[in-house]
Amino acid sequence: MERKFITDTSGKTITCRAAIAWKTGSTLAIEEVQVDPPKAREVRIKMISTGICGTDDHAVKGLLSVNFPFIPGHEGAGIVESIGEGVSSVKPGDKVLTLAIPQCRECSSCLHPKGNFCEKQDVLPSSGLMLDKTSRFTCKGKKIYHSFRASTFTEYTVVPEIAVAKIDAAAPMDKVSIISCEVSTGYGAAVNSAKVTRGSTCVVFGLGGVGSAIVMGCKASGASRIIGVDINEEKFPRARALGVTDCLNPRNLKKPVQQVVMEMTRVGVDFAFEAIGLSDTMIAAWDSCHRSYGVCLIVGVASSNSQLSLNAPDIISGRTLKGVCLGDYKTRDCIPQLVTDYLQNKINIDPLITHQLPFDQLHKAFELYHAGKTIRCILLF
Amino acid sequence: MERKFITDTSGKTITCRAAIAWKTGSTLAIEEVQVDPPKAREVRIKMISTGICGTDDHAVKGLLSVNFPFIPGHEGAGIVESIGEGVSSVKPGDKVLTLAIPQCRECSSCLHPKGNFCEKQDVLPSSGLMLDKTSRFTCKGKKIYHSFRASTFTEYTVVPEIAVAKIDAAAPMDKVSIISCEVSTGYGAAVNSAKVTRGSTCVVFGLGGVGSAIVMGCKASGASRIIGVDINEEKFPRARALGVTDCLNPRNLKKPVQQVVMEMTRVGVDFAFEAIGLSDTMIAAWDSCHRSYGVCLIVGVASSNSQLSLNAPDIISGRTLKGVCLGDYKTRDCIPQLVTDYLQNKINIDPLITHQLPFDQLHKAFELYHAGKTIRCILLF
Repeated sequence: MERKFITDTSGKTITCRAAIAWKTGSTLAIEEVQVDPPKAREVRIKMISTGICGTDDHAVKGLLSVNFPFIPGHEGAGIVESIGEGVSSVKPGDKVLTLAIPQCRECSSCLHPKGNFCEKQDVLPSSGLMLDKTSRFTCKGKKIYHSFRASTFTEYTVVPEIAVAKIDAAAPMDKVSIISCEVSTGYGAAVNSAKVTRGSTCVVFGLGGVGSAIVMGCKASGASRIIGVDINEEKFPRARALGVTDCLNPRNLKKPVQQVVMEMTRVGVDFAFEAIGLSDTMIAAWDSCHRSYGVCLIVGVASSNSQLSLNAPDIISGRTLKGVCLGDYKTRDCIPQLVTDYLQNKINIDPLITHQLPFDQLHKAFELYHAGKTIRCILLF
Repeated sequence: MERKFITDTSGKTITCRAAIAWKTGSTLAIEEVQVDPPKAREVRIKMISTGICGTDDHAVKGLLSVNFPFIPGHEGAGIVESIGEGVSSVKPGDKVLTLAIPQCRECSSCLHPKGNFCEKQDVLPSSGLMLDKTSRFTCKGKKIYHSFRASTFTEYTVVPEIAVAKIDAAAPMDKVSIISCEVSTGYGAAVNSAKVTRGSTCVVFGLGGVGSAIVMGCKASGASRIIGVDINEEKFPRARALGVTDCLNPRNLKKPVQQVVMEMTRVGVDFAFEAIGLSDTMIAAWDSCHRSYGVCLIVGVASSNSQLSLNAPDIISGRTLKGVCLGDYKTRDCIPQLVTDYLQNKINIDPLITHQLPFDQLHKAFELYHAGKTIRCILLF
């Protein structure tokens, strides 16, 4: 049936439901949209599931540099519906993940052994357009922008081939969407970027989806102490279950949280992770690190034009500050392996999925997210 | 003769000449000072030579957190005159270097494979006192503070054993003082901290002593392009001789220097080094880096309370910011090897020494330094 359906729509515009952010800060509206067929080196995907990531929320609120109106969502799993000319890495019927950072395999980042922030990315800044500078979405006659080379809050999306990863045919599509961002970003920041060492001490600022995946990565790497920081104590029991050894709520402390972490560890942590995107928590993470060998990983996406201000003379004591996007993974090369690792029980993403709701309950899902009641809520199409 | 002299003074207070910074920004005064004998686990050194480092100049100007009056200087070579109780790593007559960062071999930094900023350091902040919180210097009946566990602008100094490195008996003492800071800091930042890769692109902000040593390290590591930045073009011929391929004077550019570096390299450099200690050049170094895999090394010591302010959202694209002190070397373990490498012609420090003057021409040496006419001027006692 699926194959027949695919054949029926190939080459034609598809009309389907999608969530649109019409203007800064407005509530998402589920609308009927027209999705054009994929052009050369593009892929149209029938979405099966999508996670709700903090970065989507920031984009909708206008905290990032994006163009409105746009279709949010970047953490997606789906099935290839049709492909444009010249597409060779996927074919109709393939299970795929969308990738917020593409891998073109031709640019300076892709060709460098340590680079992953492909020059064809569309996050910093976000044009909301395909590589040919046009859009594939229309609603009520108006052009609708894409987001982050993905746009997954829609029954069908079109993305460049370089932003699609084919995954194992056995993958459970109602779950693996979170591997395209939450898991690769968080787990990857700990195991691939920081390379957390056995017996080390870690602190994680923000115990939402990405922060929880960071905790999993720290735990899997053998960290002996994992301090979790969040202002929502409802998250603490789940965080402890994932491996957090000490929970701190900065609002209930008499001293700055970095000072408390310093006193708890005497010398500061080996690894500090910021998974919120706020300057203040980035500074707290930096100041929680051991001043000589501490490594501070910035995983949260900060608001446009915000500044991170560090005490300059202290820098030479040796600490490292490193930004991390999607766990420093070369996305098409590495993210499918995380799906396979999940299928082979090498990593367990199930505890990260606390809610699954049908797509039309999008608003309820955002409410749960804002209330801090979810680690990850997945929307199912 | 030397041994007899050592024996004569052992256990006694020595009266000798030293340069004192009496108050913030005042001209250094060469005075007669009393140098107490070393207490337990301390070493008294007869200085043979000392380099003039920018950090001494910053300290004298009051830009760093130090106590006045003090004896500046930290880049020194000398001969052990006498030792206190319990000293086992050096003996009278040994050739040694002073170490601005000690290696106690007991603290969290020393015990960690990647740490070198020993908890017994006295730079950030600087108390100007020995480990027992007293001073060994007196002048006209007043207590004079030490600086950075060294104080080398004096014919005799007292330092903790943990801040002394015994070096090869064949070392030429009129030259190797610069290995204790300039060479370890600059050359080490390139070869040991950054681990500059063959064929890579580098930019070095500041072409003074440390910047020149960084250039040497980049060249020795096989960098294909080394961009040197300084506002004093008199430094350019020497910089080119050391390996700089492109010289930039920001005052003669129509655009910000980081934008010019970005245009010259199209994607930004692999490695950027800041060897000045100014927030503006730190930001320029950071912004000169490739946004995904670029590594920015902060080698210059910034003024007290100055801030380094980075654009926060851009951080996640992957760049690394790392502070480096003394090339991340564990000082007592590694710096003597640099002396041996010099004796074995594996590194050549001679081009870094442009001037040698007798100690009493200290003011002329500072004039040459301020005019940017020196790479390094060594004072000889």
